[in-house]
Amino acid sequence: MEENKGKQFVVGIDVGGQTSKLGVVDARGDVLAQTVIAVKTVIKEAGKEGEVRGVGVGAPNGNYYTGEVAFAPNLAWAANKSVKFAEMLSKKLGGLPVSLTNDANAAAVGEMTYGAARGMKNFIMITLGTGVGSGIVIDGKVVYGHDGFAGELGHTTVVQHNGRTCGCGRTGCLEAYCSAIGVAKTAREWLEMSNEPSLLREVENITSKDVYEAAKEGDALAIRIFEYTGTILGRKFADFIAFSAPEAIVLFGGLARSKEFLYEPMMKAMNDNVLNIWKDKVKIVFSQLKESDAAILGASALAWEL
Amino acid sequence: MEENKGKQFVVGIDVGGQTSKLGVVDARGDVLAQTVIAVKTVIKEAGKEGEVRGVGVGAPNGNYYTGEVAFAPNLAWAANKSVKFAEMLSKKLGGLPVSLTNDANAAAVGEMTYGAARGMKNFIMITLGTGVGSGIVIDGKVVYGHDGFAGELGHTTVVQHNGRTCGCGRTGCLEAYCSAIGVAKTAREWLEMSNEPSLLREVENITSKDVYEAAKEGDALAIRIFEYTGTILGRKFADFIAFSAPEAIVLFGGLARSKEFLYEPMMKAMNDNVLNIWKDKVKIVFSQLKESDAAILGASALAWEL
Repeated sequence: MEENKGKQFVVGIDVGGQTSKLGVVDARGDVLAQTVIAVKTVIKEAGKEGEVRGVGVGAPNGNYYTGEVAFAPNLAWAANKSVKFAEMLSKKLGGLPVSLTNDANAAAVGEMTYGAARGMKNFIMITLGTGVGSGIVIDGKVVYGHDGFAGELGHTTVVQHNGRTCGCGRTGCLEAYCSAIGVAKTAREWLEMSNEPSLLREVENITSKDVYEAAKEGDALAIRIFEYTGTILGRKFADFIAFSAPEAIVLFGGLARSKEFLYEPMMKAMNDNVLNIWKDKVKIVFSQLKESDAAILGASALAWEL
Repeated sequence: MEENKGKQFVVGIDVGGQTSKLGVVDARGDVLAQTVIAVKTVIKEAGKEGEVRGVGVGAPNGNYYTGEVAFAPNLAWAANKSVKFAEMLSKKLGGLPVSLTNDANAAAVGEMTYGAARGMKNFIMITLGTGVGSGIVIDGKVVYGHDGFAGELGHTTVVQHNGRTCGCGRTGCLEAYCSAIGVAKTAREWLEMSNEPSLLREVENITSKDVYEAAKEGDALAIRIFEYTGTILGRKFADFIAFSAPEAIVLFGGLARSKEFLYEPMMKAMNDNVLNIWKDKVKIVFSQLKESDAAILGASALAWEL
């Protein structure tokens, strides 16, 4: 990789429940290598002739202040404890500086630096994946809060009584309804509650992707599931707007790909529920970044600050 | 006022639905004069031998960026329109610089500079008065958002269906339940719904103060009204904490004086509803400032920045 000589690089890592992805990123945001194998190898592969300045990590329940990953239900190695991830990784890499934040914050930085939120100083990133994550940007800066854990909007309440149980131990969380898993749950509940014909009756172990495919085929039940999901999201967005008055809500993650079915009910519920000063003012935009890149780019953007 | 010679002063104004209060404030936060009459007269009275550097105004729906007061339901002169208040006042004062924000933001600045939030960089101020206002401080700065209207937490939803009508035109707002007016409404509703004996049955035109007095006399219904109000507040605080992970929620305003009845149910509901990472971590503190001073002090703190 002769052309990389003398260039500076950072490494971005996206820690996930299933796999972790990492990439070596240059100053323009080009991801030069991306793989799920060990960090050292990847650095050698892609950046060996440049200089790697630091490593940024996005991880569920990652804490920017302490570098810890704490009580992350989807990570077996940190489900019930706090792990000093940044410190451990830095040691393994011979002291290379490591910066860590939660995965949604990393994605927010990615969108702000390279994606749909370029030029925005106030926006809320909502990641609709296995769970619902969030990264809040105010005045151009990610909100970390007093303890580094700010931005857990997936665990705000949408159903006060008899709500669904959430992975976090609470009930009625936004995440329990509007994540990929939540959409699949809605499908299973609704199929059981009625005899309405639906393509989904033929599917075993329904996923949100199945619901999307059925909606594309014109399946009425599947389309209503997205209306329901979008309405819950839009209502809650109205609450979020009352907090930080963002320019836009930026959506990202697997479920955001169903935007053709989510967008209208989401916009309607949001505008029906915001104060008059915000009616038809706040945009909902979808991530423009390749999904596998966004979190890596965001994490790498953290590393440039090191 | 010979001792004021050569000192610098600012003016803080708290614009309210009933009256507006203003004071001339020195650098230590001493309110040298406070009255509801015209600005020029007050400046002459208190600061004529010092130098008045600027005027800060806290007003409902006041916009920090534009200096406008916009669509404030409780202000007859700005209920249905946007008024360029800062510009108009500055002209009347011969060009003296004027800075304006909403009244709850002003109170938050007051608490941070002189009150219960001294030393805090991340907190949420909730004003429990005629309405429910809020001022959000992140990293030591008031959050204004993209348009200057951030921090309208009184108009987040606590009852999704068949909620009470709110002054803002929405239904189910926090303000419709947990303001002084909301508490009085709860009392009237509950008295009508049962035959339970209560001291409140003897009161005409019940106010939140009557409910407080009855609770102090040991009236069971009145005490339950505060439990209900505190529980709604505590639950919603859990949502707010998931947003900005504050060190504390700071309460202020007439209703906050009922803290002996509100505190426990509020703390319980908050800790029952936050994520594990925040359980028993976030404080609820009450303003230590004289109520009539806090908003003036906050508004005046804005003026020092001019």
